[in-house]
Amino acid sequence: MKTQEILKKVKTGEISVEEAELFFRRQPFEEMGYAKLDTHRKMRSGFAEVIFCSGKADEHLLNIFGKLYDHDGEVLGTRATRHQYEMIKAAYPEAVYDEISRIIKIEKPGKQRVGKIAVCSAGTADIPVAEEAAQTAEYFGSHVERLYDVGVAGIHRILSRLEVIQSANCVIAVAGMEGALASVIGGLVDKPVIGVPTSVGYGASLGGVSALLTMINSCANGISVVNIDNGYGAGYTATQINRLAVSQ
Amino acid sequence: MKTQEILKKVKTGEISVEEAELFFRRQPFEEMGYAKLDTHRKMRSGFAEVIFCSGKADEHLLNIFGKLYDHDGEVLGTRATRHQYEMIKAAYPEAVYDEISRIIKIEKPGKQRVGKIAVCSAGTADIPVAEEAAQTAEYFGSHVERLYDVGVAGIHRILSRLEVIQSANCVIAVAGMEGALASVIGGLVDKPVIGVPTSVGYGASLGGVSALLTMINSCANGISVVNIDNGYGAGYTATQINRLAVSQ
Amino acid sequence: MKTQEILKKVKTGEISVEEAELFFRRQPFEEMGYAKLDTHRKMRSGFAEVIFCSGKADEHLLNIFGKLYDHDGEVLGTRATRHQYEMIKAAYPEAVYDEISRIIKIEKPGKQRVGKIAVCSAGTADIPVAEEAAQTAEYFGSHVERLYDVGVAGIHRILSRLEVIQSANCVIAVAGMEGALASVIGGLVDKPVIGVPTSVGYGASLGGVSALLTMINSCANGISVVNIDNGYGAGYTATQINRLAVSQ
Amino acid sequence: MKTQEILKKVKTGEISVEEAELFFRRQPFEEMGYAKLDTHRKMRSGFAEVIFCSGKADEHLLNIFGKLYDHDGEVLGTRATRHQYEMIKAAYPEAVYDEISRIIKIEKPGKQRVGKIAVCSAGTADIPVAEEAAQTAEYFGSHVERLYDVGVAGIHRILSRLEVIQSANCVIAVAGMEGALASVIGGLVDKPVIGVPTSVGYGASLGGVSALLTMINSCANGISVVNIDNGYGAGYTATQINRLAVSQ
Amino acid sequence: MKTQEILKKVKTGEISVEEAELFFRRQPFEEMGYAKLDTHRKMRSGFAEVIFCSGKADEHLLNIFGKLYDHDGEVLGTRATRHQYEMIKAAYPEAVYDEISRIIKIEKPGKQRVGKIAVCSAGTADIPVAEEAAQTAEYFGSHVERLYDVGVAGIHRILSRLEVIQSANCVIAVAGMEGALASVIGGLVDKPVIGVPTSVGYGASLGGVSALLTMINSCANGISVVNIDNGYGAGYTATQINRLAVSQ
Amino acid sequence: MKTQEILKKVKTGEISVEEAELFFRRQPFEEMGYAKLDTHRKMRSGFAEVIFCSGKADEHLLNIFGKLYDHDGEVLGTRATRHQYEMIKAAYPEAVYDEISRIIKIEKPGKQRVGKIAVCSAGTADIPVAEEAAQTAEYFGSHVERLYDVGVAGIHRILSRLEVIQSANCVIAVAGMEGALASVIGGLVDKPVIGVPTSVGYGASLGGVSALLTMINSCANGISVVNIDNGYGAGYTATQINRLAVSQ
Amino acid sequence: MKTQEILKKVKTGEISVEEAELFFRRQPFEEMGYAKLDTHRKMRSGFAEVIFCSGKADEHLLNIFGKLYDHDGEVLGTRATRHQYEMIKAAYPEAVYDEISRIIKIEKPGKQRVGKIAVCSAGTADIPVAEEAAQTAEYFGSHVERLYDVGVAGIHRILSRLEVIQSANCVIAVAGMEGALASVIGGLVDKPVIGVPTSVGYGASLGGVSALLTMINSCANGISVVNIDNGYGAGYTATQINRLAVSQ
Amino acid sequence: MKTQEILKKVKTGEISVEEAELFFRRQPFEEMGYAKLDTHRKMRSGFAEVIFCSGKADEHLLNIFGKLYDHDGEVLGTRATRHQYEMIKAAYPEAVYDEISRIIKIEKPGKQRVGKIAVCSAGTADIPVAEEAAQTAEYFGSHVERLYDVGVAGIHRILSRLEVIQSANCVIAVAGMEGALASVIGGLVDKPVIGVPTSVGYGASLGGVSALLTMINSCANGISVVNIDNGYGAGYTATQINRLAVSQ
Repeated sequence: MKTQEILKKVKTGEISVEEAELFFRRQPFEEMGYAKLDTHRKMRSGFAEVIFCSGKADEHLLNIFGKLYDHDGEVLGTRATRHQYEMIKAAYPEAVYDEISRIIKIEKPGKQRVGKIAVCSAGTADIPVAEEAAQTAEYFGSHVERLYDVGVAGIHRILSRLEVIQSANCVIAVAGMEGALASVIGGLVDKPVIGVPTSVGYGASLGGVSALLTMINSCANGISVVNIDNGYGAGYTATQINRLAVSQ
Repeated sequence: MKTQEILKKVKTGEISVEEAELFFRRQPFEEMGYAKLDTHRKMRSGFAEVIFCSGKADEHLLNIFGKLYDHDGEVLGTRATRHQYEMIKAAYPEAVYDEISRIIKIEKPGKQRVGKIAVCSAGTADIPVAEEAAQTAEYFGSHVERLYDVGVAGIHRILSRLEVIQSANCVIAVAGMEGALASVIGGLVDKPVIGVPTSVGYGASLGGVSALLTMINSCANGISVVNIDNGYGAGYTATQINRLAVSQ
Repeated sequence: MKTQEILKKVKTGEISVEEAELFFRRQPFEEMGYAKLDTHRKMRSGFAEVIFCSGKADEHLLNIFGKLYDHDGEVLGTRATRHQYEMIKAAYPEAVYDEISRIIKIEKPGKQRVGKIAVCSAGTADIPVAEEAAQTAEYFGSHVERLYDVGVAGIHRILSRLEVIQSANCVIAVAGMEGALASVIGGLVDKPVIGVPTSVGYGASLGGVSALLTMINSCANGISVVNIDNGYGAGYTATQINRLAVSQ
Repeated sequence: MKTQEILKKVKTGEISVEEAELFFRRQPFEEMGYAKLDTHRKMRSGFAEVIFCSGKADEHLLNIFGKLYDHDGEVLGTRATRHQYEMIKAAYPEAVYDEISRIIKIEKPGKQRVGKIAVCSAGTADIPVAEEAAQTAEYFGSHVERLYDVGVAGIHRILSRLEVIQSANCVIAVAGMEGALASVIGGLVDKPVIGVPTSVGYGASLGGVSALLTMINSCANGISVVNIDNGYGAGYTATQINRLAVSQ
Repeated sequence: MKTQEILKKVKTGEISVEEAELFFRRQPFEEMGYAKLDTHRKMRSGFAEVIFCSGKADEHLLNIFGKLYDHDGEVLGTRATRHQYEMIKAAYPEAVYDEISRIIKIEKPGKQRVGKIAVCSAGTADIPVAEEAAQTAEYFGSHVERLYDVGVAGIHRILSRLEVIQSANCVIAVAGMEGALASVIGGLVDKPVIGVPTSVGYGASLGGVSALLTMINSCANGISVVNIDNGYGAGYTATQINRLAVSQ
Repeated sequence: MKTQEILKKVKTGEISVEEAELFFRRQPFEEMGYAKLDTHRKMRSGFAEVIFCSGKADEHLLNIFGKLYDHDGEVLGTRATRHQYEMIKAAYPEAVYDEISRIIKIEKPGKQRVGKIAVCSAGTADIPVAEEAAQTAEYFGSHVERLYDVGVAGIHRILSRLEVIQSANCVIAVAGMEGALASVIGGLVDKPVIGVPTSVGYGASLGGVSALLTMINSCANGISVVNIDNGYGAGYTATQINRLAVSQ
Repeated sequence: MKTQEILKKVKTGEISVEEAELFFRRQPFEEMGYAKLDTHRKMRSGFAEVIFCSGKADEHLLNIFGKLYDHDGEVLGTRATRHQYEMIKAAYPEAVYDEISRIIKIEKPGKQRVGKIAVCSAGTADIPVAEEAAQTAEYFGSHVERLYDVGVAGIHRILSRLEVIQSANCVIAVAGMEGALASVIGGLVDKPVIGVPTSVGYGASLGGVSALLTMINSCANGISVVNIDNGYGAGYTATQINRLAVSQ
Repeated sequence: MKTQEILKKVKTGEISVEEAELFFRRQPFEEMGYAKLDTHRKMRSGFAEVIFCSGKADEHLLNIFGKLYDHDGEVLGTRATRHQYEMIKAAYPEAVYDEISRIIKIEKPGKQRVGKIAVCSAGTADIPVAEEAAQTAEYFGSHVERLYDVGVAGIHRILSRLEVIQSANCVIAVAGMEGALASVIGGLVDKPVIGVPTSVGYGASLGGVSALLTMINSCANGISVVNIDNGYGAGYTATQINRLAVSQ
């Protein structure tokens, strides 16, 4: 035990009172092994680092992309522009790009996907965010089922797919405008529902804040919410839940 | 019809031209010092004036109540306290009060109710606002069907009452918190839906603003919205629509 | 009526039970991969589906346009760009475009318009939204009267057109900035008034939120409100009301 | 000229360089006679100091009240409670209190009121704020005409009083909820209109913020706005304008 | 008197009861001479109509410009782009344009300017709005003094110009960001101060809303506020006040 | 298959075309077995219904409490007042109440708790919400570890409990004011973190909205958020996740 | 210095290594069940822990108060009610209470105050917050000069005290409503200015948010801002700055 | 020191009293038509004026740049575009530009930097704002240590740099999104922490308002906040504090 060692050295005069005092001023933090947290975490979590490409300078992006590829043998980048893709493609020809989700990636071949996550979108305009969620979850090894354009203004659309959402370990509900999809799904399943408000809409949609408020205020049980347009975050959390369900 | 009666009496000589002129000049607003009652209103619109009791001083309220009663033979007061009711009751023993909707009224006997308005509430806490809407519509002569506690977190509740809402000329959807009821109903009927957000809720419900935003952003067709907790306004507009449907 | 026709053909043996069953199963949503067209909708509501063109990819838009045209023999698209029009025009030369309302459509010839809806705009800058409302209502078969540039800062403008607004089954009040038009009209007519706030303005107009708040808080009776700039929604609801008035 | 004098004394050695440096550090502000501003202002402006009673401790309020009374021979206190009135009344029996405006005052007898200010209120609930404006203006020597309950949902009410508002030097428009009164009046007169939003209302009135936004966004010319419920401020500014009109 | 005439005709049978009833339904508004309001107002107010150029289509703008020029012999257009100017210039070579205020105008020669309005701006970035105010006031015949870059973070700047602001009939205070200029000026003068918040700034300036709130909450007396960036409105109201001061 | 049966009956004339048409209008919803959803759900989910006591009338509350107790043999009520507890206690002496979480319940004896959920609170003032979460999770059968007063302003407090939070299947982070606890925990664990903003605080905490925004914007992975003060919702969702982890 | 003392005693053998180890392990947080007092804090920062009394239960408060008193020989409690004071007074008769700042404390006698902090308040209503700042700073050993009621609407008030604010190491500017005081002071001094917005005001003051926005947007250099009404925070930070100035 | 020099020259007769007077009168603001440069400022505060380049017209910017360069021999410009840099470079070849912080400057050679300021950024996207802070502080003579990408979602990053932040006289914490960095640092150091929210982020980050709210609500002691993205302001205030620490 470090504390004891130092105190013993104080007693024996090996270190001065002043040196010991300095140690105890920093002690609450240094004693806790935080320096090991980082690598420990990566080993444990099974989630490799992901690149948020938006706004990154070309050189910087290429550099990070390469680093991660060298380390993990695969890379996922979100919110990438076509220009960024082409730049990376030139250096890494195996990189692929999806125009809709704006995801760029190199994925290890033969990856197996387990469990089940259902990704639902209210309208066709919400599909880019839904795809970011779906592809993130797939990249991290989850099996994904997509139910798009099942908004509550035509309730028969989601009801006709009940079996799919009820058999998933986690459901992601992606919706802009009035954002009511999460509540309706929350009432139909008994697994966690992750709401993703989108910035799709106009007027009083307030860039997604209205949909966020709708989802946060949901009267249905089992709903929690991530940031507006944060498909990546929803896919990540859903995978954490999905893994818990299959790994036990 | 009062206007016609007076004109007929002018024609027959029962009242003089001068007396009639005085009436029509005085008509639009009877001076009362603190409030100009729009007794001309009913003639134009077929809707008698209604008293918003909240915050009115006892004496003023009693005075207005009396004037309207004398004029129309019936009165409707919204947002009344029990105290206000007791004060009015002392002077007008035929006044009745409903604790839930906080409506005080004297209603002409034998009033016939026509057409159909469906009043839906998401939760039990929304019932006071729903009742204000329902009783307002009934007072103005509409037939009302109530569907309470049919929130979207249990979608079967509204679906099992489809016949009722699909047979109404107008549907009022009352909901607080996430306010998604209006959208779901909007997708199920082909008549106008009037959304009434309520201030019921806590946290990010923002006193009803969240539910208001949800309803205003509805992706369903045929939805329009009134102020937070404005059951009266919804009942009034629904009656206008209901009358159009039955009067042609 | 399509449903009836099919049923009649079943009765007469023109089509088999199996063919009919297939139709009714496929009815509610025809799978197109990216959008489930609610072709069942018109049967239920009497309103054909409409395309919200804004943000739709060319290929998708053309595809949906074609499907709806094949199904209904006419199509309405809102918020279309000139580019989108030209693309559609190339495939469907009978398509017409209106620069102001940004509506693209093919309309069946000889359509009769019934009843009356008055569409009022406060300023000239609100006309695009007003026209979206007016043309939507006309497309769905309503007779429309336009009263533009009748804002309340010059109250004589609306007063001098009293006859028009008082003879309509429903009035649409389109206004940005202070949005007071709905209140004034609400006090002048005894039919439902639908307020449409617009994003026209600058500074504290907050992209239409101020006008929305003004209209939602209206002290006049019979006013309900749709989303900022939602001319389409107003035209739709007004038509629902207008149909109720003429169909009974 | 002070600057020159000091420089001369530096030259002659009467004051040290360091003393002079200290002076010039503070010089931009000290040279401008600000110490005289206060009494100068009082003499000039003809507006005695007024007490905002709300939240003031009894002893403190009594003290200020006495000081101002001794100095000016009259006092005006706004937002006073009945308790505060009774406490002051005990010491100054000539003090009078108005329950509606919550103004307490001792006013010099025989005060003459000049010019004309019209104070309009939209509803009866806005009268307390309107009275604060009216009585403030009267206290400062303006002639005031009151037009209460003339809200725009019954436009005939304000139109029937056109002569009054058109003959005033300044019009104060007091309104809560949708706050549209200022715009309508602004279109009817050619003198400055001061809008006073009130916190009267419920739901989306947001404690007066909606009415404030309505008035700030007014499309009518000649409208400026004061804080929510700030009847005093409107009465003060209107008097400044009224004095300009009569004093030339 | 119209009412009497109609009643007489009813009595004599010249018009039917039904015709008369129709008349009295519209009577509250028709009787009040509103049809004459418009022209009456223009004659009286001495303020010609002004064009808000922003967003106007070329053809429409040119048309209005011409109409007003023909009628008044001079025109003022605000928020004009350089493109709009060049288009108008081609048709009306005497039109002049100011890049800073974005005002385009043709002004009658030899116009005399009376009274005094002081226009103050906090920073150099606020000058475009200040110039819109100043040039509007000048166009309407007011003498204007400009005090630019006198923000309160360097209080000596406004104090050194005390004479100018104290001798004006009205002061316009234009400021973005913290918007404190209006309060400081309000404490220095005894004439009305019109605050104009500007959208200048970044971060928490919220497009001018912060400055608007600062000004509306001012503790100084005699301050009223117009919309964000509304230099025109401030110049107009200031001229109304200035005219009152000089015309009596 | 129902559709086929009806079509056959149409063919045979057993039912009329009109009757069949009526059926197909309601068909999209009726065919999906929604009537069975409710009881199905209860059996399946293992979550009994819970009472939100706040604002419920005594009689109503007692009634519901009894119904649920009869049905399930245990009951959970949240947001109960002491008065409500005493009323229920009188009828059900086995009911217990916790002053801090404001939970009232009757719980079946010998309930086993499985898995692990860690409930962390930033400050002592957040404990009531944290306890609502913890006791809800325990009621639904989860094993809970509490870590209270571990806010990020003293980061050593959470770091010294690393083992506990890293061994949980789900972590609930309860925090008001700046709400940063969720982000820090999100970086320390590899399981889902549910953020619960609280309304604790003053000034710019905006009743919990600030903490909500902090959590929604978290840069850490694996965080999703429930409504302000919604300890119940967090406890419910955490239990869903915990069950997935232990049930496989 | 406590740490040093213990280490010295270890060196001299007055206390054993084990006793010392226990101390350092227990140091950062002494477990009390409901609150982990940061008694380690003073060693690190030189600032003893302070109690935020608002909302604390009597027993808890008394317990914490005692712990801190035993540890430090003095205690500071903010936002205390009179009731809380009387309860503490009963146990600790040397406790003193200040009604205005709502601070309760026991302070070591003979404490010397160094440097200079100027605390300015705009209005008399802001004094409670200003006093919380001033007394906090004094408790932590700073010399404080108070300048109250020096709001910018009477700019001479602050200018006449220039010497005081220019000689301070740090200036605290406390203001509600328009909150412009910080900007003006920021332009007058060359030391850090800490702005404290207050919730004093009404209408559009939005509970202090307006003043907060004003201060955050200040154009003056050297201004930073703390939470609304957070006098304690300002006094704390100002003392940190003041100590830096005097300790070097 | 300039003031002293002039005064000494007056004393020695090198310059006349009149010349000196002229200087002191002209001092506070040198008229340039569009901007009054506060060249008096450095004398009072020891900080030379800095140019906020954003939005300045080329000619104006060049003019101001030149004036300040002539006066101080060095210039700092913030928020400069590359175009502005190239324009200035053409006239002043010694000007240098930093793409990241967007600072343009000419700095006196051999400037010594004293004390220590730590500048921390949460993410890489916050670096531009952090660099504006760091370079501003360096320009004004502070020694700066940079700790970038140390956000709280990976708490070990900041903990591993404890020595650096604990040895600084002032810490600047730059963070967007959830903005929790300031709180964590505030708990780790005993010197003032200046929070700089950034507009980095998307969705509910609301352009930096969320991060601003997080920082303003911080529970840690010693934190004060500047405007969103205001790196300059933070660098300025931190230098004021740093100077106090080293100058005594």
